[in-house]
Amino acid sequence: MPISKRIAEASKGSSWIRKMFEEGRRLTELHGCDSVFDFSIGNPCVEPPAEFQQVLEELARDRTPGVHGYMPNAGYLETRRAVADCLSADQGIEVPADNVVMTSGAGGALNVIFKTILDTGQEVIVPAPYFMEYVSYVDNHGGVLKPVSSRADFDIDVDAIEKAMNAQTRAVLINSPNNPTGRVYPQETLEALGAMLRKKSREEGRIIFLVSDEPYRRIVYDGVRVPPVLASYENSIIANSYSKELSLAGERIGYVAAGPRVQDASVLMAGLIYANRILGFVNAPALMQRVVARLQGVTVDLNLYQRNRDVLYGGLSGAGFEVQKPEGAFYLFPKAPIDEDVAFAQELLEHLVLVVPGSGFGMPGYFRMAYCVDSKTADAAVPIFETLGKKYFS
Amino acid sequence: MPISKRIAEASKGSSWIRKMFEEGRRLTELHGCDSVFDFSIGNPCVEPPAEFQQVLEELARDRTPGVHGYMPNAGYLETRRAVADCLSADQGIEVPADNVVMTSGAGGALNVIFKTILDTGQEVIVPAPYFMEYVSYVDNHGGVLKPVSSRADFDIDVDAIEKAMNAQTRAVLINSPNNPTGRVYPQETLEALGAMLRKKSREEGRIIFLVSDEPYRRIVYDGVRVPPVLASYENSIIANSYSKELSLAGERIGYVAAGPRVQDASVLMAGLIYANRILGFVNAPALMQRVVARLQGVTVDLNLYQRNRDVLYGGLSGAGFEVQKPEGAFYLFPKAPIDEDVAFAQELLEHLVLVVPGSGFGMPGYFRMAYCVDSKTADAAVPIFETLGKKYFS
Repeated sequence: MPISKRIAEASKGSSWIRKMFEEGRRLTELHGCDSVFDFSIGNPCVEPPAEFQQVLEELARDRTPGVHGYMPNAGYLETRRAVADCLSADQGIEVPADNVVMTSGAGGALNVIFKTILDTGQEVIVPAPYFMEYVSYVDNHGGVLKPVSSRADFDIDVDAIEKAMNAQTRAVLINSPNNPTGRVYPQETLEALGAMLRKKSREEGRIIFLVSDEPYRRIVYDGVRVPPVLASYENSIIANSYSKELSLAGERIGYVAAGPRVQDASVLMAGLIYANRILGFVNAPALMQRVVARLQGVTVDLNLYQRNRDVLYGGLSGAGFEVQKPEGAFYLFPKAPIDEDVAFAQELLEHLVLVVPGSGFGMPGYFRMAYCVDSKTADAAVPIFETLGKKYFS
Repeated sequence: MPISKRIAEASKGSSWIRKMFEEGRRLTELHGCDSVFDFSIGNPCVEPPAEFQQVLEELARDRTPGVHGYMPNAGYLETRRAVADCLSADQGIEVPADNVVMTSGAGGALNVIFKTILDTGQEVIVPAPYFMEYVSYVDNHGGVLKPVSSRADFDIDVDAIEKAMNAQTRAVLINSPNNPTGRVYPQETLEALGAMLRKKSREEGRIIFLVSDEPYRRIVYDGVRVPPVLASYENSIIANSYSKELSLAGERIGYVAAGPRVQDASVLMAGLIYANRILGFVNAPALMQRVVARLQGVTVDLNLYQRNRDVLYGGLSGAGFEVQKPEGAFYLFPKAPIDEDVAFAQELLEHLVLVVPGSGFGMPGYFRMAYCVDSKTADAAVPIFETLGKKYFS
């Protein structure tokens, strides 16, 4: 066997998203691109904003010596300052540049965070449903991800999380706007969660972190604002990326930011910078660091995502599906009309509609639709769900 | 404690290179930039070649939809093909594009390799002296790095490696041209190593990999050619980057390539691609992947490095220091005139010369000088070593 037992085991059960992606390729080859309606992948389909293009071209011409060489492992101070300033305005609390480490996207950021804070066997609690990669991001560093069911409206169940805690609990991991539900956790929930974690940390005599994965922070609809986690709990660490807000998923640029009142900030930040180095990231890509420094607060055009959300939410609920209206991100998470979500995803495949079963997010009985697709694809799915609605709900 | 015990422990003893870097900054603030002679850091000081600048500017203007979005986790097929073609010519053996995975530099590549192949407690043998980050790259994934002394001329001691093997040995890790010695392992050594690993793999009934870290492959002098590892041993995996050959260390672009006759190639490659994803790299940075696809075989101007090597090698040996003439990379690894390499590095500091003690490479009694510095710095160091030579050797 050329690979480790762990990798063999983990990659086998691996990813529903990937399975659907491969099935989609097979169907596309068979039926042609225009006949397959692929809602399986969260790959931003809106192009980066015009400002990005302008800044990239300008910085590509920069021939200052060393501009593509190493910088400090935490990133360019200028970039960290720009991120900290934008974050301070956004979170309503002054975040120093020293509390920011530039990373290879949010996936890199989360690995850096868990490498830094976890000892072997420690647990990270996550509200279910959740992005399945979290299992690996925690397991990579000796930790164990522990899912706890959310409330029926997909808000965090703070009491259930408190009950799930034990001497091994090191962090709670949240994701808002949420993949796969599109839920934005309200201010009151974050404050209740913060109060509970503060109380528990004090009782246990150790820090329990709140890790907040926020790559969809600026992908929100109807004027929704994502409440600030740093203001709700002092021992919060944010993982973020420009993959969605600037449609730069392939460029791998994001950051870690710790709250300004985080305990032992200098030790924590030194640990994060060290982890960024030894995990082989070394530093976030240089050119993209300089690009995003100039694009703080800039966001892609959300019109297509909002339109698709409205069309599909309307279509699904009109057809009788039980579905929450997403406040952000670009996912819908409807209840399947039968308990077996995998069987229902298979049935959708017969209509050439690709979705990911809820089992791929730790929540069987549901399915996820990524609506970062062209408008034709969104429109074409509606009559198919109407047909299925008639079959199951009438 | 906000960080894990492992990180607290590891980062404490951390890096001599970093300590010297910080000491250098302190001295520079005190004495001014022109008075401090900093040989501590291997940050390429030659600018990227003109072709890089041209290709980067052209590709930055590319507005093809999706060009900054996700691509398959292994990288663009076009890039993997270009890398495979160049590698095939270089190694004299046909490497398929399927055996290449684009990564975030060689640091990323090595983490991806060790995550893929190591089970907990397995050992990776490395000839000493060695780049100290290897300890973390192996430990990150539950493995243990096991140093074995090299021969006096810094060539690999194949017999000593064979003796150090046991039931836990999973791989041998080599680095040629070598950091810190500048040694290029000769063809005969690679073949002897390959023969020994082939025999041992057969005896043990499992694959023992040869992992070859080759970021300095094109940084060679006097027409030296680095012999091809893929042709010497079938179960070889190369980690490489464009950090040195194109001076792009900050951009984090490199690759993993497995030999064309590697056992169970498809399982190994699937494992590497999976590890690249779950470690949070996801994929190598998109724009730089497209850039390096067009720059295969292009190398920075080596004149400054060659000149500095000649000046410093001449100066050190002329002053009586015992030192091997480097065949590649941009490091010298002379013997310290006293056993205590740390004390000698401290003495050099009094002359405002920064080097890294051999202890930082698992080989006390020596010191490393990185000669990727401007020519003035190299020239200025010579009289200082002459003075010290008189003190110690006459």
